[in-house]
Amino acid sequence: MTATVPLLILALLWAPSPRPATQEPAPTATKPMALVAGQEHVRRAGLGAAFHGGRRAALVAELRKSTPAGLVLVRGLPAQRDYARFHQDKTFWYLTGVESPNAALLIDLASGEELLFLPRPNAMKERWDGEQWDCEDEWVREATGFRDVRPGSELIATLEERVSSSKVAWISKEPWIGLSGCHDAAGPHDRAIERDPLDGRPSREDALQSRLEERFGYEVRDCAPILAELRRVKTPEEIAALRRASQIGARAMEEAIRSSRPGLTERHLEAVMSFVHRAEGAAGPGYHAIVGCGPNALVLHYNQVGREMRAGEVVLLDYAPEVDHYVSDITRSWPVDGAWTPRMIEIYDAVLAAQLAGIAEVRPGRTMADVERACRRVLSERGLGKLLPHGTCHYVGMEVHDVGQNGKPLEPGVVFTVEPGVYDPESGIGVRIEDVVLVTESGCEVLSAAVTKDRAALTRLVAEEGILDRWPDGGVPEPTPQREVQHSAPR
Amino acid sequence: MTATVPLLILALLWAPSPRPATQEPAPTATKPMALVAGQEHVRRAGLGAAFHGGRRAALVAELRKSTPAGLVLVRGLPAQRDYARFHQDKTFWYLTGVESPNAALLIDLASGEELLFLPRPNAMKERWDGEQWDCEDEWVREATGFRDVRPGSELIATLEERVSSSKVAWISKEPWIGLSGCHDAAGPHDRAIERDPLDGRPSREDALQSRLEERFGYEVRDCAPILAELRRVKTPEEIAALRRASQIGARAMEEAIRSSRPGLTERHLEAVMSFVHRAEGAAGPGYHAIVGCGPNALVLHYNQVGREMRAGEVVLLDYAPEVDHYVSDITRSWPVDGAWTPRMIEIYDAVLAAQLAGIAEVRPGRTMADVERACRRVLSERGLGKLLPHGTCHYVGMEVHDVGQNGKPLEPGVVFTVEPGVYDPESGIGVRIEDVVLVTESGCEVLSAAVTKDRAALTRLVAEEGILDRWPDGGVPEPTPQREVQHSAPR
Repeated sequence: MTATVPLLILALLWAPSPRPATQEPAPTATKPMALVAGQEHVRRAGLGAAFHGGRRAALVAELRKSTPAGLVLVRGLPAQRDYARFHQDKTFWYLTGVESPNAALLIDLASGEELLFLPRPNAMKERWDGEQWDCEDEWVREATGFRDVRPGSELIATLEERVSSSKVAWISKEPWIGLSGCHDAAGPHDRAIERDPLDGRPSREDALQSRLEERFGYEVRDCAPILAELRRVKTPEEIAALRRASQIGARAMEEAIRSSRPGLTERHLEAVMSFVHRAEGAAGPGYHAIVGCGPNALVLHYNQVGREMRAGEVVLLDYAPEVDHYVSDITRSWPVDGAWTPRMIEIYDAVLAAQLAGIAEVRPGRTMADVERACRRVLSERGLGKLLPHGTCHYVGMEVHDVGQNGKPLEPGVVFTVEPGVYDPESGIGVRIEDVVLVTESGCEVLSAAVTKDRAALTRLVAEEGILDRWPDGGVPEPTPQREVQHSAPR
Repeated sequence: MTATVPLLILALLWAPSPRPATQEPAPTATKPMALVAGQEHVRRAGLGAAFHGGRRAALVAELRKSTPAGLVLVRGLPAQRDYARFHQDKTFWYLTGVESPNAALLIDLASGEELLFLPRPNAMKERWDGEQWDCEDEWVREATGFRDVRPGSELIATLEERVSSSKVAWISKEPWIGLSGCHDAAGPHDRAIERDPLDGRPSREDALQSRLEERFGYEVRDCAPILAELRRVKTPEEIAALRRASQIGARAMEEAIRSSRPGLTERHLEAVMSFVHRAEGAAGPGYHAIVGCGPNALVLHYNQVGREMRAGEVVLLDYAPEVDHYVSDITRSWPVDGAWTPRMIEIYDAVLAAQLAGIAEVRPGRTMADVERACRRVLSERGLGKLLPHGTCHYVGMEVHDVGQNGKPLEPGVVFTVEPGVYDPESGIGVRIEDVVLVTESGCEVLSAAVTKDRAALTRLVAEEGILDRWPDGGVPEPTPQREVQHSAPR
């Protein structure tokens, strides 16, 4: 990986187009033809201009109920802090579909104006990092539907100017969320840093609020609860994305089950699933892979994968991808070698019956608590009720534990998990079965149904040849013998 | 993935051991047997107590030259902000090997005391997340070599108490670095946030300095330059880790070359390499995958992979893993379909000759600038000198662009890349060849030599069957037909 530092010195040597190398590169938005031909896939705005525009319209309609005038300010993330691929904050993406650093959205509730702020063109940066969305990119207007796209450098002046017409500025106090992120991890993390006597920094959202109040004189209000309620009920575009995530997740899980056998480690199943996720188009993991065999199947969020899987053990696999900014959440459990003991069968069948009872309860008007009760009833009837130490339902959407009020009656478009489990310390067996369900008019659709949870089908799947079986040497590839180069005679 | 919120309510139902469920769980460090049996692999301190202890001793020896008395304070990272696996900060890991959240190191230069602060035992957290290193874990003393391990809650009192004997507190102002992190991305990111008129938060390191100065009255000094100089020359343990990273990286690259063919996308090659990395034991990517085919091969850090690879194009692949906290950095370039055009051959052979000339220059006493000059000389002789817009050498270690002063004469134990490239906008061909070299007494060893750069061998490798060829359907797996579950009759 080339280091960027020498770039500054060597920039003038760079001849990005067929012009003579001694000429200076054109300074503005004119992009080298190479970029235009190679990066069409980057020039798409999330789920499309209609979807993101619709989400803004829904937000504006709600906000106008309480304040007819005022601004809405939502900031995208800066460039990555590490050498990972850029991944946009969930709230900003939901409202814009913009997948590029240093963008901002400003909505004026009184006039209805929607301003998208993007960086100015930076030809040198694009030669290093590829397409960057900028304020002079005509395709941005088409892709996003924003007609008013301005340079990010004008945001401060715009905020200074508009405070005179309305003091109210809405921001979202939801913690910013990247890949594998989730509000229930990010929020406590940010608060712990603020409380830390050797740190004390505020969250990004608190810092924004302070600046708006102190520097500009805005009266800041939090629209996170309104956004959470919008996000609770999914649109058709979101349902399609959740379906893609669940299909890819199911396909990956199926491949992991096929690859299961004693002698591999927990890590190998994670590797297989991650491969399928990425090959099929996922951005990455929706959350860390929970792969626990034997005693580790009893550790609910166990992610320190590395133990060797042994015959006679159950492996619990809870892993799913993020696709187009939406995640899935799937768990399956099976014997490493496909051989079920009587106690495994007893526990597995109870958990499956509990899960099916929960799913059968899903329909408009019921609540997640009703679904959980249905799951627990089955386990209690079978004498296993004390062995389920966690909740069985949570919303799924852009985050694996998605936002939204838990107590609300279910309605079409709501998506959540049904995931009872039994963790028996006496036998060392841990079983969880988890699917993502979409509430429909008449009941529900199981989005992750493509990976089987039928006991006999699981046994057959374990016996099939998986991707790891197809490796040379029948498993972990042997390191290639190293051809070392030595220069033994210094000149 | 189970949500943790209901845990609070349901905690009392959890019977982690064969005791009756109505009994309260034992409150302290006694761990369930299941954990003891399943997570041995977590109870290892980095590269071993001797290595990390040796790094502390080397730091202390350097610091004592300027201040015989004073404290050294280095903090580990808090728990992850997202649902990714915990990954320790590089500086803290280098000095301790501790791979668990909320740890801190305090060294008293006068007395030579080394104190490791760890959280108190938290049995409930371990039931959810698996082994957490805590101050009552006896194995921590054995694994790390720290004899004095204290509860993290005592750190503040210790700092308050010791300021009376010495005002000097050394910290590292190097930005904290996680997986895929690098100081040359993290530093500018942190400074941009501090300058941002709508944010303004200081870096973690600046926040620590302020607190130590303002709350405790310490005089804070920065030991980052001393640590950088220690890190510049690798120990045998570090070299072994870098060798593992390069071997795994080479193996993955080989598999990507095998899988190369028109019709796949850039993303598929990333997926294949990530699979091999993880299956063979990598923690994850050392940096984002740069996979550019056709015009995208000319974009130096292109990571927005997704374009379909076509016959007649060159693909440039720059990707390597992090293994045991050390990374590799490997680039290979080849025709997608294995068919070399005359211009491809001309460029490839020039870049390879340039790289070999650079590698031949590596030995103690030379500098990275000498190596770069040797590379550039070959390209200039072949009329391609203007088509190399980046530097050809950077250190590699715990970070892909590792710390250390660039101008220093090379010496045994120094590890860096040699990576000339030619990016020709006229033909649309981009070629870079990059290896990681270790300076030895008599010259150098190419750590990533196991993946070929011989043109004929590359052609043969492309023709071999790769993991993607062995997928059903000969490529991207078809999504399994979905078996949807509908409950059409609400009861």
